[in-house]
Amino acid sequence: MNNRYAVILAAGQGTRMKSKLYKVLHPVCGKPMVQHVVDQVSQLNIEKIVTIIGHGAELVRDQLGDKIEYALQKEQLGTAHAVMQAKEMLDGKEGVTIVVCGDTPLIKHETMEALFKHHEETAAKATILTVFADNPAGYGRIVRNESGHVGKIVEHKDATEDERKIQEINSGTYCFDNKALFEALNKVSNDNVQGEYYLPDVIEILKNEGATISAYQTAEFDETLGINDRIALSEAERIMRKRINEQHMRNGVTIIDPSNTYIGAEVEIGMDTILYPGTMISGKTTIGSNCIIGPQSEISNCIIGDQTVIRQSAAFDSQIGSDVQIGPFAHIRPKSEIHGNVKIGNFVEVKKSVFGEGSKASHLSYIGDAEVGRDVNIGCGTITVNYDGKNKFLTKIEDGVFVGCNSNLVAPVKVGKNAYIAAGSTITEDVPGEALSIARARQVNKENYVEKLNRKK
Amino acid sequence: MNNRYAVILAAGQGTRMKSKLYKVLHPVCGKPMVQHVVDQVSQLNIEKIVTIIGHGAELVRDQLGDKIEYALQKEQLGTAHAVMQAKEMLDGKEGVTIVVCGDTPLIKHETMEALFKHHEETAAKATILTVFADNPAGYGRIVRNESGHVGKIVEHKDATEDERKIQEINSGTYCFDNKALFEALNKVSNDNVQGEYYLPDVIEILKNEGATISAYQTAEFDETLGINDRIALSEAERIMRKRINEQHMRNGVTIIDPSNTYIGAEVEIGMDTILYPGTMISGKTTIGSNCIIGPQSEISNCIIGDQTVIRQSAAFDSQIGSDVQIGPFAHIRPKSEIHGNVKIGNFVEVKKSVFGEGSKASHLSYIGDAEVGRDVNIGCGTITVNYDGKNKFLTKIEDGVFVGCNSNLVAPVKVGKNAYIAAGSTITEDVPGEALSIARARQVNKENYVEKLNRKK
Amino acid sequence: MNNRYAVILAAGQGTRMKSKLYKVLHPVCGKPMVQHVVDQVSQLNIEKIVTIIGHGAELVRDQLGDKIEYALQKEQLGTAHAVMQAKEMLDGKEGVTIVVCGDTPLIKHETMEALFKHHEETAAKATILTVFADNPAGYGRIVRNESGHVGKIVEHKDATEDERKIQEINSGTYCFDNKALFEALNKVSNDNVQGEYYLPDVIEILKNEGATISAYQTAEFDETLGINDRIALSEAERIMRKRINEQHMRNGVTIIDPSNTYIGAEVEIGMDTILYPGTMISGKTTIGSNCIIGPQSEISNCIIGDQTVIRQSAAFDSQIGSDVQIGPFAHIRPKSEIHGNVKIGNFVEVKKSVFGEGSKASHLSYIGDAEVGRDVNIGCGTITVNYDGKNKFLTKIEDGVFVGCNSNLVAPVKVGKNAYIAAGSTITEDVPGEALSIARARQVNKENYVEKLNRKK
Repeated sequence: MNNRYAVILAAGQGTRMKSKLYKVLHPVCGKPMVQHVVDQVSQLNIEKIVTIIGHGAELVRDQLGDKIEYALQKEQLGTAHAVMQAKEMLDGKEGVTIVVCGDTPLIKHETMEALFKHHEETAAKATILTVFADNPAGYGRIVRNESGHVGKIVEHKDATEDERKIQEINSGTYCFDNKALFEALNKVSNDNVQGEYYLPDVIEILKNEGATISAYQTAEFDETLGINDRIALSEAERIMRKRINEQHMRNGVTIIDPSNTYIGAEVEIGMDTILYPGTMISGKTTIGSNCIIGPQSEISNCIIGDQTVIRQSAAFDSQIGSDVQIGPFAHIRPKSEIHGNVKIGNFVEVKKSVFGEGSKASHLSYIGDAEVGRDVNIGCGTITVNYDGKNKFLTKIEDGVFVGCNSNLVAPVKVGKNAYIAAGSTITEDVPGEALSIARARQVNKENYVEKLNRKK
Repeated sequence: MNNRYAVILAAGQGTRMKSKLYKVLHPVCGKPMVQHVVDQVSQLNIEKIVTIIGHGAELVRDQLGDKIEYALQKEQLGTAHAVMQAKEMLDGKEGVTIVVCGDTPLIKHETMEALFKHHEETAAKATILTVFADNPAGYGRIVRNESGHVGKIVEHKDATEDERKIQEINSGTYCFDNKALFEALNKVSNDNVQGEYYLPDVIEILKNEGATISAYQTAEFDETLGINDRIALSEAERIMRKRINEQHMRNGVTIIDPSNTYIGAEVEIGMDTILYPGTMISGKTTIGSNCIIGPQSEISNCIIGDQTVIRQSAAFDSQIGSDVQIGPFAHIRPKSEIHGNVKIGNFVEVKKSVFGEGSKASHLSYIGDAEVGRDVNIGCGTITVNYDGKNKFLTKIEDGVFVGCNSNLVAPVKVGKNAYIAAGSTITEDVPGEALSIARARQVNKENYVEKLNRKK
Repeated sequence: MNNRYAVILAAGQGTRMKSKLYKVLHPVCGKPMVQHVVDQVSQLNIEKIVTIIGHGAELVRDQLGDKIEYALQKEQLGTAHAVMQAKEMLDGKEGVTIVVCGDTPLIKHETMEALFKHHEETAAKATILTVFADNPAGYGRIVRNESGHVGKIVEHKDATEDERKIQEINSGTYCFDNKALFEALNKVSNDNVQGEYYLPDVIEILKNEGATISAYQTAEFDETLGINDRIALSEAERIMRKRINEQHMRNGVTIIDPSNTYIGAEVEIGMDTILYPGTMISGKTTIGSNCIIGPQSEISNCIIGDQTVIRQSAAFDSQIGSDVQIGPFAHIRPKSEIHGNVKIGNFVEVKKSVFGEGSKASHLSYIGDAEVGRDVNIGCGTITVNYDGKNKFLTKIEDGVFVGCNSNLVAPVKVGKNAYIAAGSTITEDVPGEALSIARARQVNKENYVEKLNRKK
C-alpha cells in the first residue's frame, strides 16, 4: 500500500450559516461536523492528516486536538490555495493524498477506502469521488471518456444542454498522487471572476499533462452532502440520526418511532431495550438490556443497568443500576449514584447523592449532597437542606431509615440506622439509630371557627 | 359460501429481531403482530383458525387465547411443513383455507375477504395474494399466463432478465382448496439447498396437475410487509400509526402532527378533540369531545369526559370527568376517579383517590388513598401521609374543606365538612366539620441576627 | 395599476371536517385558515376586500375584524352565487377582482401578485391560477389553445382520455375584469345535477363572448391545497410548519429536528438560538440570540432575552430576561416578569410574580402574586400562601433575602432586606430586614422507640 496523506479543508467562514459559531464546528447529532470527518479519515491508515484552518482556527484546533496537524490559511483564496497551505508538510512525499471538505459530515470511511483502492488500481494521478444525483442542477458534471475515465469536469454554468443531462457529479472529494498534486498546485491561476484558486483546476492541469484522471462513483448521494446553511444542517442531522438509529435497531433495540428519537453517535444500548418517542440520549451513555426509556426522556453521560425504566425524566452524568424505576417527571443531576432496585418517583430531584439498593424517594423530594443507605424510605416532600446561603453540607441517612413526609433534614446531619422521623419534622440534630425523632407542633382544633374566619375575611 | 379455514404461521424464531421476545409477539402500536393478524382473520367467518406455533409456543398461546386452535411445529422445516401440522384439524374438509403469516401485521380483513371472493369466482385450486412492488428485487415474481391466471412464480434468483422486470410479486398469503392443499402438501419435497419444505411448491404441484392458479392483486404494498427485523418493525409501526390517526381525523379529531402522535388500536376519541404533538394514548382509553390532550401527554386505560384538558401529564387506569384541567406536569396514577370541573395542577400526583366535583389540587401535592369531597381546596404542598412504613391508610376530606399549604394529613384521618386547616400544619387527629385546625409553631423574629449567623458560618 | 378588489369565499359548511367549528376557522399553525388568506390578500394593495360569509358568519366576522367587508350568503347555492353576494359592493367598478377560497391557507401573496400582473399583461377578461399536478385525477384540466391562452376547463368526469393526461389543473383562484365578472355572473344558470351556480361557468360565458381567458401557472402545488377534511388540515399544518421553520433556519436558528418543532406564524427568534425537538412556540413570542429552548418546551406569548435556557418547561404570557435558566419541569404562568440571571429550577411554578436580577428558586416551589427582589434565594419547597379560600394576597421579598426550605410565606407578608428565614417555618407576620425568623418546633429524639412503634402497627 502507498503512503497515505489527508488534507481536510476547514478554513471557510460559512456566511450562510448566519452564525457566530464557525461553520465546521456546528454539531450534527452532537458532534461538530469537522470532527465527524476527522473521525472517519482517522480510520484510513493515514500517515499525516493536515487540517487547513482559517476562520475560528483556534476553536477548530481545540476541538480536534493534537493527534492531527494544522496549516493556517490566513486569507481564503480558494480551495487550491487552501490545499497549498499543506505544502510544507506534504510536498515531495511519495504517496496518495485525499482531499476532503470539513463540511461533509456524512462521508464514511468505507467510501474513502474504496476511493483510495480505486485510485491505486487505475494508476491515475487523480481520482474524483463522484455520485449519481437525481437532480444534478448546480453541480459539476463528470464527462467520462472512451476508456471510462474522466474526460472533463464541466461546471453547471458552462455545460451544454447534453452535458446538463449527465447525472454523475463531482462530490468535491479527491485522491491525488501527492507529488503530482503539489506540482500542479503551483500552476493553478486565479484568473477568473472571483479571483480564486480552484482545486478542480488541478484536474485539468494533470489531464493536459497526459495523466489518467479516474472517477469512483459511490452509491449514496447523502454521503457527499456539503453543509452551507442550517436547512442542510438539519438535513444532515436527519440522515445521521437515521443511520445511528438503524444501527441500534439492527442490534436488537426497539425504537417505536426512529424519526422522533435522538441518539448520539457514541451511545451504546443493550438488546430488547425499548425507546419511546421524544427521547434524547447523548454523550457517553451506556444503557443495558430490557430497559424502557421514554417517552420524552433526556439522558446524557449516564451508565444504566438492565431492566431499568426511565419515563418523562432527565438524567445527567450519573450511574444508575439495574431494576431502577425513574419518573415520570424526575431529575437526576450529575454525580449521582443510584443502586439497583431503587425508585425515584415523580417530582423528585437527586443531586450528587448515593442511593443504596432498594431505597425509595417516590414523590416531591429533593435529595442533594446525600448518602442514602439501603432500604431507606424517603417520604413525600422530604428536603435535604444542604445549603445555608454560603456553603453546602452533607446529609447521611443510614440503612433502613424511614423519613416521614414533608421533613427537612438540615445538613450537616446524620440519621442513624433504622431511625424513624415523624412527618412534618425539621431535623437539625443527628438522630441515633433506632430512634424516633419528632419536631412538630401539637394540633389544636378550634371548633366552629370557620364561620368566624369567614367573617374576618 | 364455502366453509372457510385459516392457517396462521407463527412458529418461526425471528433471529434477525435479535430478541429474547419471540418474533410474532413484538407489538405494533401496542398489539403483538400475530394478534393483529388473528384479529383481522377473525372477521372473515372462518370455521376454524389454526395457528402454527413453535418457538415461544406457550407465550403465543397465552397471548392469543382459546378462541382459536393451535398446532405445534416442533422443528422448523419450512412453510409447507408448518401448514402440514394443521393436517389433523383440517385434512379432508370441504372448503377454502387461507394461509397467512403471523408476521404481516398490516394485512386487512377486507383484502383477505376480496382474496376469498376472487378465489371462489375463478374456481381456482389456489389463489395467490399479489401486489405491485415499486422495487420488486428479492421477491418472487408472478408470471401471468394468457388467460390472466398464474403461469408460474419465479424466485428472484431464478428469474430471467425479463422476468425480473415484472413488478407483480407474491405476498406470501394464499387461498387454497382445502382438500387439494393437503393432498399437494404430501407431495412437497425438501430436495433443495436449505433442506426445507416450501409452501410455493404446492402451487407448482397443483399447476402441474392442471389446476387453475389464480392471483388477486391488492393495491397497498404496505399490507403485505413481513417483519423480519426491528427496522421493518418500526416501519410497520409507522404505517399502522398513520392508518389509525387518519381514521381519527376522518372522525373529526384534530391531530396537529399525525407523524408525532401515538394512538393505540383500541382508543376512541370524540369529535373536535385536539391532540397536540408528542402524545401517546394507549390501551382501552375513551376520550370525549372538545378535549385538549397534549403536548407530551401519556394516557393509558382512561375514560375521559368532554372539554377536559390534559397537558404535559401522565394518566393511567383512571376515570376523569368533563371540564377537568390536568397539568402541566401532573401524574394521575391508577384507580383514581376525578369528577367534573376538578383541577389537578402542576407537580401534583393523585393515586387511587376520588376527587369530587369542583375540587382543586393546583400545585405540588400528593393525594394518595384519599376520598376528597366536592369543592375542596387542597393547598399547595399538601401531602396525604398514607404510609407508615408498613401499611397504607385512608384520608377522608369532606365537602368544602380548605386545606392550607404545606399541610400533612397523617392517615387514617378525617377532615370534616367545611373545616379549615392552617398552612404548615401536620394533622394527626380528625378535624371536626366547621373547625379550624392548626398545628404549627409560633413565629419568632430575631432582629439583626443575620450578621451573627454570617459570622458563625 | 388597475384598481384591485378581492372576494374571499368563506361561507361553506365543511361537512367533512366533522366539526362544530366552522371550516375556515380551523387553525393552521395557530391561525384560522381564512385569516391566513386574508393576511396574504391584504398585502396586495386591494381597494376593497369582501368576504362572503354564511355558516358561522358571526364567528368569522369576529375573527377577521372590521378592516374588511362582508357579504352574507344566506343559502349556499354554489361558488358563482357566493361571488354574486358581493354585487352591491363591487358591481360597476372599474378594475380587477381576485376571487380566492377561504380554505386555501397556503396561498402566498407573491403568487397572487404574479397572477394580477399576468392578468394585466395579457389583457384577459379572466385569468385562472393553474398549477402542475403530479396526480391530476379529480381536478379540472386546463386545455390551452394555440395562442397559449385557455381553450377550456374540462372537469375530470367530462374529460376525454387525452384530456385526462393533462397535468395543468385549475386551482380555483381567479382574476377577473370586475365589470365583466358581474355581467357574466348574471348569466350563470343552475341547470345542472346539483342545482348550483358554478364560478367556472363565468369563464365559459366570457370565452363565448370572445374574451381572452389567460392562465398563470404557479410552481408550488401545495399553495393551492384546499382543506376539506382534517387529514388535509394536518397536511396544510405540516407544509406551513416547514415553511416557517425553514425561514427561521435561513435566519440563523438551529432547529435540531424541523419536523418535530412547532413555531407559530408570528414568532421571532434570534441568531444562534437552538431549538430542541418537541418544542412548541406560539403567539406573539420573541426569543433572543444564543438561547437554548427545549426539548419539549411550550412557550406562548413570551418575550425572552439572550442566552436564556428553557428546558422541558412551559411558559405563558411573561417576560423573561437574559441568561435565565428555566427547567427542567418548570411552569411560568402569565404576568410573570423574570429578570436577568435568574434561575427557576425543577418543579417550580411562578405565577404573576416579579423575580429580580440574580434570584433563584431552584426546586419544588410555588411563587405566586409575589415581588421577589434581587439576589434572593428561595429555598426548596417554599410556598407563597397567597390564597385564604376567598382572596389572593401579595408577598414581598426584598433584596438579598434567604428563605429556608419548606417555608410558608402566608400573604399578605413582607420579608425585609437580607432577612433569613429558617427552614420549615410558617411565616405569618412581616420579617424585618436583617432579622432571622424562625417558626418551628424543637426536635425530640425518642431513643429506641422504633421497636415500640413497630409493635403498635
